[in-house]
Amino acid sequence: MTDFFKGIPEIRYEGPDSDNEFAFRHYNPDEMVMGKRMEEHLRFAAAWWHSFAWEGGDPFGGRTFDRPWFDDSMASAKLKADVAFDMFRILDVPFFCFHDVDVRPEGATFAETTRNLEEIVDHIGTHMESAKTKLLWGTANLFSHRRFMSGAATNPDPEVFAFSAATIKTCMDATHKLGGANYVLWGGREGYETLLNTDLKRERQQAGRMLSMVVDYAKKIGYDGQILIEPKPQEPTKHQYDYDVATVYGFLKEFGLENDVKVNIEQGHAILAGHSFEHELALASALGIFGSIDMNRNDYQSGWDTDQFPNNVPETAMAYLEVLKAGGFKTGGTNFDSKLRRQSLDPEDLILGHVGGMDVCARGLKAAAAILEDGGFEAAREARYAGWNESFGKDLLQSDLSSIYDQVAKGGIDPQPRSGRQERLENLINRFV
Amino acid sequence: MTDFFKGIPEIRYEGPDSDNEFAFRHYNPDEMVMGKRMEEHLRFAAAWWHSFAWEGGDPFGGRTFDRPWFDDSMASAKLKADVAFDMFRILDVPFFCFHDVDVRPEGATFAETTRNLEEIVDHIGTHMESAKTKLLWGTANLFSHRRFMSGAATNPDPEVFAFSAATIKTCMDATHKLGGANYVLWGGREGYETLLNTDLKRERQQAGRMLSMVVDYAKKIGYDGQILIEPKPQEPTKHQYDYDVATVYGFLKEFGLENDVKVNIEQGHAILAGHSFEHELALASALGIFGSIDMNRNDYQSGWDTDQFPNNVPETAMAYLEVLKAGGFKTGGTNFDSKLRRQSLDPEDLILGHVGGMDVCARGLKAAAAILEDGGFEAAREARYAGWNESFGKDLLQSDLSSIYDQVAKGGIDPQPRSGRQERLENLINRFV
Amino acid sequence: MTDFFKGIPEIRYEGPDSDNEFAFRHYNPDEMVMGKRMEEHLRFAAAWWHSFAWEGGDPFGGRTFDRPWFDDSMASAKLKADVAFDMFRILDVPFFCFHDVDVRPEGATFAETTRNLEEIVDHIGTHMESAKTKLLWGTANLFSHRRFMSGAATNPDPEVFAFSAATIKTCMDATHKLGGANYVLWGGREGYETLLNTDLKRERQQAGRMLSMVVDYAKKIGYDGQILIEPKPQEPTKHQYDYDVATVYGFLKEFGLENDVKVNIEQGHAILAGHSFEHELALASALGIFGSIDMNRNDYQSGWDTDQFPNNVPETAMAYLEVLKAGGFKTGGTNFDSKLRRQSLDPEDLILGHVGGMDVCARGLKAAAAILEDGGFEAAREARYAGWNESFGKDLLQSDLSSIYDQVAKGGIDPQPRSGRQERLENLINRFV
Amino acid sequence: MTDFFKGIPEIRYEGPDSDNEFAFRHYNPDEMVMGKRMEEHLRFAAAWWHSFAWEGGDPFGGRTFDRPWFDDSMASAKLKADVAFDMFRILDVPFFCFHDVDVRPEGATFAETTRNLEEIVDHIGTHMESAKTKLLWGTANLFSHRRFMSGAATNPDPEVFAFSAATIKTCMDATHKLGGANYVLWGGREGYETLLNTDLKRERQQAGRMLSMVVDYAKKIGYDGQILIEPKPQEPTKHQYDYDVATVYGFLKEFGLENDVKVNIEQGHAILAGHSFEHELALASALGIFGSIDMNRNDYQSGWDTDQFPNNVPETAMAYLEVLKAGGFKTGGTNFDSKLRRQSLDPEDLILGHVGGMDVCARGLKAAAAILEDGGFEAAREARYAGWNESFGKDLLQSDLSSIYDQVAKGGIDPQPRSGRQERLENLINRFV
Repeated sequence: MTDFFKGIPEIRYEGPDSDNEFAFRHYNPDEMVMGKRMEEHLRFAAAWWHSFAWEGGDPFGGRTFDRPWFDDSMASAKLKADVAFDMFRILDVPFFCFHDVDVRPEGATFAETTRNLEEIVDHIGTHMESAKTKLLWGTANLFSHRRFMSGAATNPDPEVFAFSAATIKTCMDATHKLGGANYVLWGGREGYETLLNTDLKRERQQAGRMLSMVVDYAKKIGYDGQILIEPKPQEPTKHQYDYDVATVYGFLKEFGLENDVKVNIEQGHAILAGHSFEHELALASALGIFGSIDMNRNDYQSGWDTDQFPNNVPETAMAYLEVLKAGGFKTGGTNFDSKLRRQSLDPEDLILGHVGGMDVCARGLKAAAAILEDGGFEAAREARYAGWNESFGKDLLQSDLSSIYDQVAKGGIDPQPRSGRQERLENLINRFV
Repeated sequence: MTDFFKGIPEIRYEGPDSDNEFAFRHYNPDEMVMGKRMEEHLRFAAAWWHSFAWEGGDPFGGRTFDRPWFDDSMASAKLKADVAFDMFRILDVPFFCFHDVDVRPEGATFAETTRNLEEIVDHIGTHMESAKTKLLWGTANLFSHRRFMSGAATNPDPEVFAFSAATIKTCMDATHKLGGANYVLWGGREGYETLLNTDLKRERQQAGRMLSMVVDYAKKIGYDGQILIEPKPQEPTKHQYDYDVATVYGFLKEFGLENDVKVNIEQGHAILAGHSFEHELALASALGIFGSIDMNRNDYQSGWDTDQFPNNVPETAMAYLEVLKAGGFKTGGTNFDSKLRRQSLDPEDLILGHVGGMDVCARGLKAAAAILEDGGFEAAREARYAGWNESFGKDLLQSDLSSIYDQVAKGGIDPQPRSGRQERLENLINRFV
Repeated sequence: MTDFFKGIPEIRYEGPDSDNEFAFRHYNPDEMVMGKRMEEHLRFAAAWWHSFAWEGGDPFGGRTFDRPWFDDSMASAKLKADVAFDMFRILDVPFFCFHDVDVRPEGATFAETTRNLEEIVDHIGTHMESAKTKLLWGTANLFSHRRFMSGAATNPDPEVFAFSAATIKTCMDATHKLGGANYVLWGGREGYETLLNTDLKRERQQAGRMLSMVVDYAKKIGYDGQILIEPKPQEPTKHQYDYDVATVYGFLKEFGLENDVKVNIEQGHAILAGHSFEHELALASALGIFGSIDMNRNDYQSGWDTDQFPNNVPETAMAYLEVLKAGGFKTGGTNFDSKLRRQSLDPEDLILGHVGGMDVCARGLKAAAAILEDGGFEAAREARYAGWNESFGKDLLQSDLSSIYDQVAKGGIDPQPRSGRQERLENLINRFV
Repeated sequence: MTDFFKGIPEIRYEGPDSDNEFAFRHYNPDEMVMGKRMEEHLRFAAAWWHSFAWEGGDPFGGRTFDRPWFDDSMASAKLKADVAFDMFRILDVPFFCFHDVDVRPEGATFAETTRNLEEIVDHIGTHMESAKTKLLWGTANLFSHRRFMSGAATNPDPEVFAFSAATIKTCMDATHKLGGANYVLWGGREGYETLLNTDLKRERQQAGRMLSMVVDYAKKIGYDGQILIEPKPQEPTKHQYDYDVATVYGFLKEFGLENDVKVNIEQGHAILAGHSFEHELALASALGIFGSIDMNRNDYQSGWDTDQFPNNVPETAMAYLEVLKAGGFKTGGTNFDSKLRRQSLDPEDLILGHVGGMDVCARGLKAAAAILEDGGFEAAREARYAGWNESFGKDLLQSDLSSIYDQVAKGGIDPQPRSGRQERLENLINRFV
């Protein structure tokens, strides 16, 4: 144990009436929800990058946080890992997620960087032997270093593709070694700043080839975790190839990977793409590629990725409603891709951000479960489509335009609008949130 | 000839120095651009709906225009067609486009509606015998009537699906009869207002089935025009299934229709979806589904579809640059899905809107051609990817993560960033626009 | 009583456990909140236009609703009023709001239109004698008729200014006669479509002059209700002069009207202007011009005014927190400028939309009151500014740059950042919502 | 002369047919436009921060640029200044702009920081003796250092107010010493992240007090340059108090400073606030507070401040049209608040970005002048308001609601809509751009 969180107690469930800031009021890991422990439903993960590597900078200002591990040494990287496992224990989170650059210093050469990663992975592995916290997913940061400024897989320079491929290999190895349930790809630079200097078609082909290599390598090493792509429409690039769930689906179909790869959907990225979070979840489920979620909150009036902790229960409930309807998480989970505001300087802010977020998710999950258990909501929705379960509806889908025309032309089919009853359904939902 | 445009002369090319409002200063149909007449490049079409059916209403106000054909009679429908062909002649546009509801009054029954359509189609056909203007595309309006309020193909009520299918059949017949080069589907109500009452997966299946029927029917009747889908992200619905080009591509792949259907891309819809127009064009070209364009302009500060006439030449040039790089239009063309501002009451406004738009497109096309003929721009872009044409790059794409890792780990591959030179390319483009 | 709402009971409070759709679960008019009855806090009003005049059309489709009063006769106008008072009674709302065009048919002449208005006002007055429902505010619709297409007060044609002024006079008279607590001006066309044909400065002067006339007329007739301006950034125009609260404040200051006019703030308009609702409320309060609210909800992913019934309690709580901090409503209230979705066809949808909205507001109010009564939240905020209550802070504001420079230059003032504790405050708020 | 720009020639005007990248094709300083030299119209300024201090970082990646002065020494600060004056000479720009932090390293104490600033100001002053380039404006960076994370003037901690005031004093002194034509205030942190921890009213008062101190200090030291506020709606904060021109106007009126302070309007900030650039210019002119412009370009599809070099001539023309109509710049000018894309690594990119931007502005200015000299455009606009110059219109503005009502009620005033002719005006504009 380090003394970074000195004086902060382990967070335990105390119930909704508690006024203890350092307690859960709604997240009760062992509480049963629709026949499963809440912890197993939510599968919370803490993110190494926002929690421990982010320095509080923004485009108009530098570092605000003051952490003892903010230098590039291996000793600091280990201290950072020690503090991370302190936080995991305090929060009792069952999972964590990381990029390579979050956990190790960059070396002078690729080989040294790889050795640094391996050494830290061993250090993390040692922690994991005694901790309950497992790895939800690992990933490679192929966007921060200036070598990736024009893309990783989609770089005009094949050397960057090679460097990226080699880096991904080391990150997949690390994820495999630590028993990661998933391996994630987020293409922060896989897009363009301007079409003027971009061969969009060629770059898409490069991205498709890299993804195929990833899938092949997982099979080769016997990694049976799930490969996930995380869509984002833009930022840092003007336009990212993995814009949203629908775009990723078309991409996977183009390269024949739709059975091998699923999506990790982030609330904030959905909002930036012009969708609601629940839309992206529902669509991924409908397309059979729902994998995991990055939980956070994007400010609706800001045009960039604000990555705030979630705090709106009704919205969170809508998200978990889709998760539950999709059958719940399999390998996926709820990763807090959420960062403190840069004015939130204190170690306790980091704990309280997660406590609040976990409680909000727990309330959302319970509300979603209550909606489904009540049954009225789903029944109302299904009733709306009842005609499709009757012979007229069923036959219609087997028919063709000419035959249908003949039916309609002879009269008798004059469809009458029926109320969509949106307000009534909104009221119904509000009984549970 | 009607007297609607009385006193307005036929518009002819007079060159850039003309100060005659009723002349083209840039659109010169017979001028050769990259070896083809400008008219054949641009393939301009006038839109029946905005030009003749739109009444000038908006969500906060009713009809402002005062047209002699604004009633529901067949006589008015014919007068409207007569005026339309007057305008086509005045503008010398080689094409027009229409929805069924633009040209015929709704009947008391489907059968009467169909007869109305057929009678007007004959009337239009008679005009076409003596006019030069051909049909670029026809389409069915499955969004204005209240029966479609909850969708056409995606309606919860199978009767609406049937009614829609029958209506599409009549519109495809009309398009076929008039020799339309394309048949378009825009799903204005194929989306949802709220996920709460929506079975997204089922509705997508219904939409896929309808599209398959359309493709089958075209084959059945020997219609060899191109089937096109027009993407739009939202409005009137909160979320439309044909969100953008990438979404439509995934949809076509899901239903195995990517070889049968292409896209009709609208500038304003691209903007609403968070893309530039040129992005959508470049992506469609890369995916092999580029078909046609709806030319207009969306106000960048308004969050709805403003459908203004284009007036920014540099932007239009970027669009035609992508069109030319995609090989130009085949069956497609430049349809003005542009409407007058509701304060532009006079017949001459309708003519001047088109004159301005056609001139802007002509300037854009000529600039795009000059950029390509200069060659410097494309050469700079290709040079950026030169490494991929060498053996290192080529081998890389055939390799796998382990082998690439071995290469990188042994050192020697340490990619160095190279300037993307965006500002230089922007300057280069500005020589031609 | 009409039979429009036949079978729908009067809505009464049944408590949170009720599963009766036609009951309030949270709105309990007589419940005391911070020493005042809930009804007097919220001062709910129903809006005549959305409830009774809106036909369900949108830019891509026509009327979906089917109401027996949808024609232009005086008999229908009276039926509409009868139904309105049925709804007021069913919902037990203490107030309503109206535009002239909502309640009366347009006549052939201004004089006839005025007579129509007067006759209906008498009819409404008769209802009010026996009903509990009072008038929160009246207003003139100076945006729907084509004569206003280029503005009302800001029209390039002085005749339209005159017509508008005369119309406002009739609406102020009607509001006065019915005892309206406020008179509202919303300038739906007081803006521009393009700067190209607009003299912005002149139009602002016209608007300022009209507003002065309104203030003068109120004094002349002894109307002591509050004059309110309702800000909106755009839609229907590209840019509206009353963009947001800050803009209206500057406008009032320019014309010396800041003591005579306050603002009516709408949630959806705040969102369209890029603000949160609570921002607009807090700013109006800080500037001393907070008047009343239009409660509704704007879809965060749609770029137009969706005017939905509110359904997010945490957001509503933030709004009422600002209302309570501003001292609560004086003449103002909570007007539901909320409309049914156009697929919500049934009379019961209209009732249920309001029931849900009223319950959401009641939950928001109670949460806001609990936050204030707990006190921890306000105390934390005030503590952040504690330094300004000490002599150093107080003196500073009386000082000048040179003196302050001298103090800082000699050392000793080296401010250290302190955590803003946003996440902690968000958690605190979430205890109450 | 340093060797940073080695091999890059001084940029000279060569005319539109030049294909020399390192030449102006449109900006010809001595060319007369509306009776004034182009250089005196445009008054170009280069920005120290983007050109020399920006490192190419973004929220997802670090420094990409590699400049020999990227350390914190005084020697590097002087080298940077030397390179800056090299660039000013190469570009022949008549002005530059700077923040304190752009030019000097931070010292260990305020006093040391001030000495650093003074020493560099002397160094710059020495350059200015032999260079033609003058200072357009200076400003204080009160947003990058962590001490300002919660605001400068609006900080909850009065010590930060004091530190800010002292810093402003040093920057005003520096600006005065270097003969700056203006002094600018941009309040990057003068706003809030969340209303939860913010006393909006108090913070506005603090901001008002600081601005009054600035105005007083200018008078005290005899500085007769113009004080300017630069509006921005948000970023880095969620909401900035100087949101847009209209907001700043209200703020100035609140504190009685509308005669002492004008605005510096940035294209990108206008876009972020939901306005067109020309709107902000036209409004500032109408309100009598137009001062200067920050020229750049914001990506219309990105929700953050992209600060690109301008490249769209038609848009730039609309901006200069408003500048010319406002009487042209007095103390203000055209500051390139434009930065290279982070992939544009080379020194020549920095030169070419400015060359392109200057040419685009020159084309815009010439087009705007041609529009005004042609006169047709302004005549058409004025004609629209002709009625207001007649007695009916003039009398109307002196009248009152009752009298106007009497006039209208007796009949005869029945305004008829007239076409706004927007498309015609757009075509007219396109003759000149």
